[in-house]
Amino acid sequence: MIDRLLEDFAARRAPALARAVSIVENRRSGAEALLAKLHPRINRARRIGLTGPPGAGKSTVTMQMARLFREAGLTVGVIAVDPTSPFSGGALLGDRVRMEAVALDPGVFIRSMATRGSLGGLSSATRDVCDVLDAFGFDRILIETVGVGQSELEIAHTADSSVVILVPESGDSIQTLKAGLMEIADIFAVNKCDRPGGERLVHELELMLGLRGGESLQNVPAHHGVDLRAANPARAARKAAADATAGQWTPPVLKLVAKDAAGIPELITALDKHFVYLESSGALRERRRQRLRDRVRDAVDHRVRARLWGAPSTAAWVDDQMSALEAGTTAPLAVADTLLSRSVQLLGPSDGADS
Amino acid sequence: MIDRLLEDFAARRAPALARAVSIVENRRSGAEALLAKLHPRINRARRIGLTGPPGAGKSTVTMQMARLFREAGLTVGVIAVDPTSPFSGGALLGDRVRMEAVALDPGVFIRSMATRGSLGGLSSATRDVCDVLDAFGFDRILIETVGVGQSELEIAHTADSSVVILVPESGDSIQTLKAGLMEIADIFAVNKCDRPGGERLVHELELMLGLRGGESLQNVPAHHGVDLRAANPARAARKAAADATAGQWTPPVLKLVAKDAAGIPELITALDKHFVYLESSGALRERRRQRLRDRVRDAVDHRVRARLWGAPSTAAWVDDQMSALEAGTTAPLAVADTLLSRSVQLLGPSDGADS
Repeated sequence: MIDRLLEDFAARRAPALARAVSIVENRRSGAEALLAKLHPRINRARRIGLTGPPGAGKSTVTMQMARLFREAGLTVGVIAVDPTSPFSGGALLGDRVRMEAVALDPGVFIRSMATRGSLGGLSSATRDVCDVLDAFGFDRILIETVGVGQSELEIAHTADSSVVILVPESGDSIQTLKAGLMEIADIFAVNKCDRPGGERLVHELELMLGLRGGESLQNVPAHHGVDLRAANPARAARKAAADATAGQWTPPVLKLVAKDAAGIPELITALDKHFVYLESSGALRERRRQRLRDRVRDAVDHRVRARLWGAPSTAAWVDDQMSALEAGTTAPLAVADTLLSRSVQLLGPSDGADS
Repeated sequence: MIDRLLEDFAARRAPALARAVSIVENRRSGAEALLAKLHPRINRARRIGLTGPPGAGKSTVTMQMARLFREAGLTVGVIAVDPTSPFSGGALLGDRVRMEAVALDPGVFIRSMATRGSLGGLSSATRDVCDVLDAFGFDRILIETVGVGQSELEIAHTADSSVVILVPESGDSIQTLKAGLMEIADIFAVNKCDRPGGERLVHELELMLGLRGGESLQNVPAHHGVDLRAANPARAARKAAADATAGQWTPPVLKLVAKDAAGIPELITALDKHFVYLESSGALRERRRQRLRDRVRDAVDHRVRARLWGAPSTAAWVDDQMSALEAGTTAPLAVADTLLSRSVQLLGPSDGADS
């Protein structure tokens, strides 16, 4: 069954792609074997994460980027891991028609992963679906995630380049950054930059990144909780020089009005520059190696779980411990220890049943 | 060290509580042993989850509930798993002063878990911190989570009762529900219910739950994507009767104006009713058993990871496979299989090093 699917997949047939994605996304039987077969063909696409708070216009940016990539003759896969995304069938949008034009282009594949169950592993599933799209031959993969939850931040880690999209309206943007978005941003994009507060947010981000001196610090409110006053021109200059010498990347801050496509070419240019940096610094190889290590870990975890918890004897034995656990006469830790001791043989070499 | 901590903890000393919470939250050395010692003292508190989109006023509801619980002589633990929560040091609030009054009450313990790393396991950490607060003797534990990401929905599953808080402004509330909140709600609360759209949202929720007939269905827009027209008086009556017979719980829809404490007593009454339902139906025991099963699984996972990946030989061996993985001549699946075969002895009985 997998062989036939792989044949159709290699012939670049759309139904085979959709089916392969579904198998991997839902961790259905054969998913591991499929990923193993596709493994030699990955790491050709560039994986770009687009992360930001709800309402930042991530889908509009994604759609505009997809349009420009298509004009340049590149194929595009889109993975929306955001229950509030229009790609997930959500809210009505003013530019819905343009979005549909992109969605109907056969050079674009869009998959919403918003409706997955709450079993966790969303970042692993996203990485694996990226692998499928990559192996199919897409040139660019855009991963749209809402930058709120922990899972979502982990998803951003699966991209080669991460764009953090903010808007002036999200008054607590700097707070949001402190809550984890800061560490993942390779590029900042301030969308809806023509609205009140747009320039100010750009300014604040540049101050925070040490890209700008302290000439107008008196305008920056203290209650944001970020010590913006620590920035000063001499330090900014030293940082930029040091970064350049060390071959490090300093995230640029771009201005967008995505609904008018303003700033999108500049965003793509910045991503191209970041990719050159990733290649020349060795960071790309390291990110890909890390994804491989994660894949090995996931496969081991999957096997341990399947062998241990898939054994009927395990569930029955744990049920037997339940009254003692409820009474507090034994603790989960002790049960876990005993369970592992008596189950070591279950974890041994595979009989092929769990792949 | 753990013994001294446990002594202070048993004497209900606040520093011991804070330290125990930190050890468990950050999975520091001794966390498993500490949880094992506290295990006999859990399941006395009621665990209440408060989940909703950013801006729904979850923190205000939490604070008002804490205030009423205190007036009734009950102690309260608050866990805020929300980077946008004021409890996490976030945005300024109009009622900040009242919130501080609650926070300074020695019968209230507040812990923000917003700044945890992106290592995942947030729902496990939340459940374990609940266990610590429970063992310390808090009567009520309020868990505030933003209902957006998958991790956050999993966190909601760790509560005995889950309140889903919505506001009229979140125009896509019904969409949000479809994205996972629906399944976790034991009680719906429409906050800021005095604003335009408040009554309408209550109405829509009641229709969706089959609590209300179809008399004004023509007012409900079709594009919400929920087939509200399926509701009809006869069906609603049948559903309510069937639920009552089967001893099932139908989530009520409450109206709040939390900043004025309006609706908070009714929310607490509804929670009391839900707790009676949980006890009488056996659902409480089942939820607690499920948490115990999850604890055993987590402890097993923790041990397998520590023994397998903590062994220097494992990392070295995986590094050796990296060139073949990068070249595509072997796949992560095959590496995982071989790794497990050669590592079975590592997974055997503990030498005590990993607890």
